[in-house]
Amino acid sequence: MSSQHNNRHFVAYGVAGALGLAYFYWKNQDKKRKDGNATAMFSDAEFEELITYCNQPATQIALAKNQESQKCIYLDYNGTTPIYPPVVAAMLPYFCTHFGNPSSGHHYGKEPKRAIEEARKTMLTSCLGVDPGSVDTSAIWFTGCGTESDNLAIQLALQSTEHQFKEGTNKPHMVCTNVEHPAIAVCLQALEKSGRIDVTYVPVETDGCVKADDVQAAMTENTVLVTIMLANNESGALQPVKETAQECRKRGILFHTDAAQAVGKVSCRLDDLGNPDMVSIVGHKIGAPKGIAALYVRPKCCEENGRTLSHSHGILLLGGGQEFGRRGGTENTPYMVGLATAASLATENLEKNAKHMEEMRNRLLSQLETKLNEAGIQCRVNGPDDPKKRLPNTLSVGLPNVHSGDLLAEISDKVAASAGAACHSAGGISQILRAMKVPEEFARGTLRLTVGPYTTPADIDRAAEFIAEAAIEQTQSDTI
Amino acid sequence: MSSQHNNRHFVAYGVAGALGLAYFYWKNQDKKRKDGNATAMFSDAEFEELITYCNQPATQIALAKNQESQKCIYLDYNGTTPIYPPVVAAMLPYFCTHFGNPSSGHHYGKEPKRAIEEARKTMLTSCLGVDPGSVDTSAIWFTGCGTESDNLAIQLALQSTEHQFKEGTNKPHMVCTNVEHPAIAVCLQALEKSGRIDVTYVPVETDGCVKADDVQAAMTENTVLVTIMLANNESGALQPVKETAQECRKRGILFHTDAAQAVGKVSCRLDDLGNPDMVSIVGHKIGAPKGIAALYVRPKCCEENGRTLSHSHGILLLGGGQEFGRRGGTENTPYMVGLATAASLATENLEKNAKHMEEMRNRLLSQLETKLNEAGIQCRVNGPDDPKKRLPNTLSVGLPNVHSGDLLAEISDKVAASAGAACHSAGGISQILRAMKVPEEFARGTLRLTVGPYTTPADIDRAAEFIAEAAIEQTQSDTI
Repeated sequence: MSSQHNNRHFVAYGVAGALGLAYFYWKNQDKKRKDGNATAMFSDAEFEELITYCNQPATQIALAKNQESQKCIYLDYNGTTPIYPPVVAAMLPYFCTHFGNPSSGHHYGKEPKRAIEEARKTMLTSCLGVDPGSVDTSAIWFTGCGTESDNLAIQLALQSTEHQFKEGTNKPHMVCTNVEHPAIAVCLQALEKSGRIDVTYVPVETDGCVKADDVQAAMTENTVLVTIMLANNESGALQPVKETAQECRKRGILFHTDAAQAVGKVSCRLDDLGNPDMVSIVGHKIGAPKGIAALYVRPKCCEENGRTLSHSHGILLLGGGQEFGRRGGTENTPYMVGLATAASLATENLEKNAKHMEEMRNRLLSQLETKLNEAGIQCRVNGPDDPKKRLPNTLSVGLPNVHSGDLLAEISDKVAASAGAACHSAGGISQILRAMKVPEEFARGTLRLTVGPYTTPADIDRAAEFIAEAAIEQTQSDTI
Repeated sequence: MSSQHNNRHFVAYGVAGALGLAYFYWKNQDKKRKDGNATAMFSDAEFEELITYCNQPATQIALAKNQESQKCIYLDYNGTTPIYPPVVAAMLPYFCTHFGNPSSGHHYGKEPKRAIEEARKTMLTSCLGVDPGSVDTSAIWFTGCGTESDNLAIQLALQSTEHQFKEGTNKPHMVCTNVEHPAIAVCLQALEKSGRIDVTYVPVETDGCVKADDVQAAMTENTVLVTIMLANNESGALQPVKETAQECRKRGILFHTDAAQAVGKVSCRLDDLGNPDMVSIVGHKIGAPKGIAALYVRPKCCEENGRTLSHSHGILLLGGGQEFGRRGGTENTPYMVGLATAASLATENLEKNAKHMEEMRNRLLSQLETKLNEAGIQCRVNGPDDPKKRLPNTLSVGLPNVHSGDLLAEISDKVAASAGAACHSAGGISQILRAMKVPEEFARGTLRLTVGPYTTPADIDRAAEFIAEAAIEQTQSDTI
């Protein structure tokens, strides 16, 4: 089954890759070109060569085989995912054929405009479970990355409430956990440092989950935003979003959740999340490209409870009137279509994929434990014991007397995994593990192993072997 | 020649489009799928079907013919461009094969990291004419759109100098023209309104160009930034960037130019621009996708003349340590590669393309004038008389007694053009034409006709006929 699956996987990559190789082939033919016709960047013959080359099954098979032989088992789906083939296929027509500026009034603007509207609708009905009968597409704001979505949520809360704090005696107050992604944490810290807001960072328990009661206790009469990630990127810990969202609504406080790691792994239906005011959804964690994200904003939530928002040309990026006058920047049609396609696939296949990923994750842990126990090594699973409180695909495991960076470097061409979030892979022990008070000997040796819909049992078996072997070797060489 | 060229154009689109169509085909096959294997989102047989379908020359030819028959002549290259086929080809391998997070330490991070570094280098050496021997790749900051690049330039100037204005008696002062893109104008207006900066908007002359002397006269001892677009998006007027950049350097003031409309049409070598401190370069005006841009920032320019910049996790988007700690957000590798490829092609083919575009633009004007003069209509070319002071591809032409919106709507399926910038195509008379004091009767009837490297003489001839016909009809029906 594994070889069949690999085959499927890489044949798909081959289709795309072959076109890429073809470009370099075409570049080499460059010198043969005739000049003369000023418009002829490419001659008919060259295009025919390019197409013929792409079409050769031999090219695709060669590329697929080459890929397969190089294969390094990918266990870093929380870091980023490949773009899934149907997502690439859905995007391609919007690169060349339907390339128009959606703000254009002419023929070329029509299909992009329609496609973007459709993408917003898909995000709402599929990913967020909104009733198709009550869709307001202006609730989806597309952005350029998860960081922008998270920063934007904070700016929305700030800009819609700042007028209530004129006296200088108090400031807008925001609440988050101490394990948020830097897109939330760094942004809040910067605003705090500049004196514009106060922030309470509610500490998580040792299992990586924050207590809903602790979050509630942190809310004050000045609180304008509570922002809590739905699932932690390192521990996989699911946070008490539903209870907190409901409490915030009662108190008239805006509530935001960063669902970057949650989509496609657990339900992100608004109902299941306590109907939050804002939700960040990020493309490159769910099979869409890096460089696209969305922020769901509950319609009119910034015009309630004394909030008011004046915007016509942007909140964070200020320019033209795109995104309903809320974000300048010409619309990235292909990626918007890609994000909606990926979100829709992730949601349609949620149950099947979650079950599969959980099986793969459990198989990995079980094999690692068996092999390491045989060598007298006891590992530690970081995060909640209760599997219902964890993402199904995430295994954060601490190996004593191991340095995870060294171990990962040792096996870096065989297994792709990380010690923590990719965006700070150069650093030491992650802030998340510190916040969870993971004992130093396990924190130093923690691996974040994250599987995806394409992970196979054979991948797991080989990866467990490579990891255990390297860990045992490192432990033994250390003790000698 | 024209039909040959169309053929080339649309065969290229066919390659990409066929893959897209194939996706919908594949979706229709969805119900036939077997369940069972949890990892099998796609079966081998389905993949084979997909590939076979994509490979059929018949599919591509059918699609190309379909496209061709629907063809609407595209004269809106300043609004946006299609993604040119070699740019798509260069990007594809980074979607599926080299999909890794460039911040990852493992196998999958390596090639993306290398490709991004290479893309930065290409931007510098090719597009900006930097000597390959003295390249500092940290001078290229990739962003999510032109708006972000422009906003970022303003934030850099503000954040690096604001500490010099502690007393509250004066404020940082910025200078721009009154025909800047909203990504500059709206951002400056917002900062001005919030009380953080003063702004001088130097008016352009009736030809759409600002006088270098007027810009100099606007500089004060508090001036921290002068930002002037290299070429205007509507009139095509080239601004006195070189003289102004040099003057700013003498005075120790940061200078930024938005080169969005200039790349691929006139030289953007730093030498030719008076070595500005910052330059915005935008993908979707040069055959790269929407959703990617760059800001060139002269190394250390924010650490001179008392300027200082503290950043480790972002200036505008605050999050992880990407872009040398200056912009949070996981890197959009394919688009970065695409932007560099497009910028490189635009620069390599600059002379050839500029000559071609100028010929097409002049042919269009000449044919329009002939046809309209025969009907007794005198049109007005907006912008500089001297062709060296204008973009070679841009024709802003005012037709008396014509309403440009109505005219464009009338021919919207035959000719794609605009009355002004796409980002405010819904509005009335453009601010740019107002700033140039274009007489109302011509401003109301102004068309922005912009050609590109793929525009053919046959396109021009047909478009001139459609436009003249509609204009004459409208004029006559108005006078009756």
